[in-house]
Amino acid sequence: MPEPRTNERAPATAWNLLIGRPLRGSEASKQQITPVEGLSALSLDALTSVAYGPEAIIVVLAATGAQALHLVLPITLAIIALLAILVFSYRQVIDAYPGGGGAYAVSRANYGAGVSLVAGASLIVDYTLTVAVSIAAGVGALVSAFPSLASATVPICLGILAAITLLNLRGLGETARAFLLPTMVFIVGLLAIIAVGLIHPLALHAPQPGHSLLPAHPLETVSLLLVLKAFSAGCSALTGVEAIANGVPLFRQPRVVRAKRTELLLGVILGTMLLGLAVLASRWHIGPRSGQTVLSQIMAAAVGRHWAYYVVTLTITLVLALAANTSFGGLPVLASLLSRDNYLPHLFSLRGDRQVFANGILALSVLSGALLIAVGGNTNSLIPLFAIGVFTGFTLAQSGLVVHWSRERPTRWRRRAAINGFGAVVTAVSTVVFLISKFTEGAWVVVVAVPTFVLLFKRIHAYYDRVGAELGFGTRPPAPVVRRALVIVPVTSVSRLTERALSKALSLGDEVIAVTVALGGDEESNRRAAALEDAWASWDPGVPLRVLRTEYASVVQPVCAFIDDVRASQDVLVVVLIPKVIPSRARYAFLHNHLDLVLSAALRNRDDIVVARVGLALGRPVGPPRRAAPPAPSSRGPDTDPSGTNASEHAPTPAPPS
Amino acid sequence: MPEPRTNERAPATAWNLLIGRPLRGSEASKQQITPVEGLSALSLDALTSVAYGPEAIIVVLAATGAQALHLVLPITLAIIALLAILVFSYRQVIDAYPGGGGAYAVSRANYGAGVSLVAGASLIVDYTLTVAVSIAAGVGALVSAFPSLASATVPICLGILAAITLLNLRGLGETARAFLLPTMVFIVGLLAIIAVGLIHPLALHAPQPGHSLLPAHPLETVSLLLVLKAFSAGCSALTGVEAIANGVPLFRQPRVVRAKRTELLLGVILGTMLLGLAVLASRWHIGPRSGQTVLSQIMAAAVGRHWAYYVVTLTITLVLALAANTSFGGLPVLASLLSRDNYLPHLFSLRGDRQVFANGILALSVLSGALLIAVGGNTNSLIPLFAIGVFTGFTLAQSGLVVHWSRERPTRWRRRAAINGFGAVVTAVSTVVFLISKFTEGAWVVVVAVPTFVLLFKRIHAYYDRVGAELGFGTRPPAPVVRRALVIVPVTSVSRLTERALSKALSLGDEVIAVTVALGGDEESNRRAAALEDAWASWDPGVPLRVLRTEYASVVQPVCAFIDDVRASQDVLVVVLIPKVIPSRARYAFLHNHLDLVLSAALRNRDDIVVARVGLALGRPVGPPRRAAPPAPSSRGPDTDPSGTNASEHAPTPAPPS
Repeated sequence: MPEPRTNERAPATAWNLLIGRPLRGSEASKQQITPVEGLSALSLDALTSVAYGPEAIIVVLAATGAQALHLVLPITLAIIALLAILVFSYRQVIDAYPGGGGAYAVSRANYGAGVSLVAGASLIVDYTLTVAVSIAAGVGALVSAFPSLASATVPICLGILAAITLLNLRGLGETARAFLLPTMVFIVGLLAIIAVGLIHPLALHAPQPGHSLLPAHPLETVSLLLVLKAFSAGCSALTGVEAIANGVPLFRQPRVVRAKRTELLLGVILGTMLLGLAVLASRWHIGPRSGQTVLSQIMAAAVGRHWAYYVVTLTITLVLALAANTSFGGLPVLASLLSRDNYLPHLFSLRGDRQVFANGILALSVLSGALLIAVGGNTNSLIPLFAIGVFTGFTLAQSGLVVHWSRERPTRWRRRAAINGFGAVVTAVSTVVFLISKFTEGAWVVVVAVPTFVLLFKRIHAYYDRVGAELGFGTRPPAPVVRRALVIVPVTSVSRLTERALSKALSLGDEVIAVTVALGGDEESNRRAAALEDAWASWDPGVPLRVLRTEYASVVQPVCAFIDDVRASQDVLVVVLIPKVIPSRARYAFLHNHLDLVLSAALRNRDDIVVARVGLALGRPVGPPRRAAPPAPSSRGPDTDPSGTNASEHAPTPAPPS
Repeated sequence: MPEPRTNERAPATAWNLLIGRPLRGSEASKQQITPVEGLSALSLDALTSVAYGPEAIIVVLAATGAQALHLVLPITLAIIALLAILVFSYRQVIDAYPGGGGAYAVSRANYGAGVSLVAGASLIVDYTLTVAVSIAAGVGALVSAFPSLASATVPICLGILAAITLLNLRGLGETARAFLLPTMVFIVGLLAIIAVGLIHPLALHAPQPGHSLLPAHPLETVSLLLVLKAFSAGCSALTGVEAIANGVPLFRQPRVVRAKRTELLLGVILGTMLLGLAVLASRWHIGPRSGQTVLSQIMAAAVGRHWAYYVVTLTITLVLALAANTSFGGLPVLASLLSRDNYLPHLFSLRGDRQVFANGILALSVLSGALLIAVGGNTNSLIPLFAIGVFTGFTLAQSGLVVHWSRERPTRWRRRAAINGFGAVVTAVSTVVFLISKFTEGAWVVVVAVPTFVLLFKRIHAYYDRVGAELGFGTRPPAPVVRRALVIVPVTSVSRLTERALSKALSLGDEVIAVTVALGGDEESNRRAAALEDAWASWDPGVPLRVLRTEYASVVQPVCAFIDDVRASQDVLVVVLIPKVIPSRARYAFLHNHLDLVLSAALRNRDDIVVARVGLALGRPVGPPRRAAPPAPSSRGPDTDPSGTNASEHAPTPAPPS
């Protein structure tokens, strides 16, 4: 028998037109990247957080009035310090886990399954929030530049989400790393604008659209709680710092060196941007404005609403969309890992035609789309949710590393453990601060979501364990048992449909019985049953016909009762072959009465019988589907038979030797 | 083998809780009725049209101002004259077609299929409109009495529609004829109120809620077109006159005499009501008012907003709902007739568990619900649509009878033909008047709908003819052909699931091949395939395992390619048995990866092979479902096997003789 061909037919469905032809595994192999490419592939999430981090601080402070805004700079300095700790800490994660995987892998290795599930759940929440926040912030930048788009915020968000989803379903998500240009324009452009602003602003006193949202009178005194709130809000600028450590395998050899270099580069650039923006915001007393992001105000004040402003704004929207794209690289892989460990449905470990984990991509898209709709595309509603999950992951990864170092004890393990330990303590404290200060503003959603996911993982795992035991995976099942097969064919007419079904039934079974149901018990149905019996006798197909009478209107129950009777009186395998017409076009399906569907649905969940619907296709030549190049010229030629009858089934020619 | 039992198990699903247990044919037999019962069973549609007929006249006339309202009485007299003609005409229909069936049956007998389809289409449009108009008018009466309900008009309409639909799905529609009481209260109450109004109105000058919708100044002069428009609008009061003739078989013997008596009774009562209302409306210069029907104004002026007013109003709402109910008796039967004649999908001739034509009931409910939503529950938007279809039916039925009389030539056939001929001419003229005068107000919908339905009927008929020829109905098909059966079992594991599938495959096929697909062509998949091959070799089930390698991510294409190769090289019947897990609860279904669904969907439309999904039910004792009283104590006792293994499949006991 020939080996299956590799140029299998790919049906050109609408779906394939949308996402492209199926790809081979080898075609989807990953290119490996350099540190600069690493910035665009893995660091956009972190770099673009300058679009919402400083804003989050200012929004919190401005709630008490203008006098609190002088705290922007010191709070930003604290955040930059935390950034430095995280960068050094994650450089050590890269050393310790060059296989990548991030918080889930680290905590799975060092803490075991339970804690790793918390990390997994936090990561799922984070990935979803990253998508929502990045897209919302990108659209926020766009709306700042073009205020007339404000009313269409949510549709624009969902449109960008749909575009990213489609790109990822096509498997083009990874090639986004080739989009080096926008990343470079973004970094260079924003640093240049900050430099102009610091040295000699061009348009400081140009009028800004929108009106100030600063309260006219101070509403509360500046408290410690306020400072903590502003700090924790600003920590959203640190999200994404972990992405490089998660993706070490993507780097070119020597991987660890290149990845650590990228992490450092990220830290320096992000720190510089945050510092510059904080200095300018403090110096110019930037407060929140309607329909204008803080970043947009700073840029407009530095260079005016000018070509440079518009270029950088559009670039920010683009790189924020690309930042959302990095989550689409992360979550489906994480979901497939969880799925292989039996913590998520196995659906998530199936690759689609384009070799991507399509179900994970779709799940992420649905979750983040729902989130965007729920908050109306407003970044500031999402920020309180954001940092909790990220910082839980930071804490777990770093404290896990402390365990790792003290277990492995390489050279200088004490110093390494100290760096990670310090990072873990700081991020743990920050996590608690977020929880307390932002609980009522939405952080409770994360506090509910993470344990819910963990519970879900555990229940799914328990279910799969139970099923595996019941199916006897890993044990040797008994030998198969052969029994007599009795085929039951429900019929309603003497026709080619019935003949086809009986041909198949006789080929399969040791005994075949045709049954027909006389419904309702009235004269009309008895008359029809008698007419069928007469036609049957005159056809004489060699199969007995049994009339099942019922006073009810359902064919299901008499057939089931008949099957039960057969099963009770004989030790046979009961097979039910239900004849069905396959219409030439799908739209004719509603014209055929769906007794076959009703019957097969009713028998669907019985595992003691075999149920098959045997079709007769209308309006087509009968036989196997036309093949581009049949391996041998067939003398039976079912495709070219001008009579339209099924030569291969009816012809009395003996079968060729197999 | 025992005969199938008649006390078949009825599964207690949510659906059954809603619509009741399945009924036997004999339980649903119809009671037969007397003339007075006939009024409530078949005449409510006609009688209740007093709730919208006079109003329709007044609304048309009032458009030109108060001075046109004096035409209400003469126009009503013309309508009463037409009513008299129709009553005598339909008494002759009863004579000629005591089997019932109405316009469709009459025109089928006398004109042939083409015209009968026009009648059928008109009737479908009418039945739908009757439901919508009756419910809208009933809710209009309710809202007149309780103006605060006005904002909920559409939800109340849909609620009543849902209740009627449910009652009819339960098969209780026909027992509505037992609701004699509301019909009598309605007839007696309304006649009494009219009498009080004519003799001594109790509350003529009481204030009425709502404001007059009469224009302050005359807008146009009274023209012939206006009179014709008002006449045709008022003819909506004549709808339903044909229902008694359609339902003659429901009457007690002597049927024809009783049915003719009922028709006469209906004519007298309806005529009296219309005349009385027209006299009162003219005398009191009743014009349209916001939130108040004309009937409500007349009743309130006659007896005041008093207990009598409220009782009759609530009764009107009830009998209008019951009038809608009569369409639910008519359309499903008509649809089943059309379906048996191959003009509608065969779905419509299937009876449901409760012996009713459930698909026809649901279709009517959906159509009329859509109509109610489209017009916002406003009767006056529906009236222009209403009369066209009804009067087309009148014309076809009566002119068909002229043909009938001239063909049969019984005694006095000339007089009979003259009555029907006169009726046909008058209704034909009326139909043309409606068409012209109300075309732009909505009648065009009917003009589009009726030919559309006729076209649909013809295309469906042509399709069934084609399919019947292709399936060879009425001819003797060739004898069934037996071939070797080759069973292909796609497997992914060595487990009880696989063992069950192989047991069934070996029982069915002359040859069995297990196949497994190695996806993506990477090391991981090759490793897994090799592991499966090892486990298979050590299990040694007596069936070869073939690994199908593909570089793509889809299992469908390699399996299809393998089937094609087998089909091309051997003349065998290919059977694909796809193992599947049947989870113990439906909500676990998403945890099992649905390769079986994907594969069976891909193979669904191939009629050259047999595809069956063979299940293993989890978490249940294996074997046939538990029976209340097994016919003989089974020594194999699969239900009580404490080991949980499938004794009936694994036990080597020989099969008992059948």
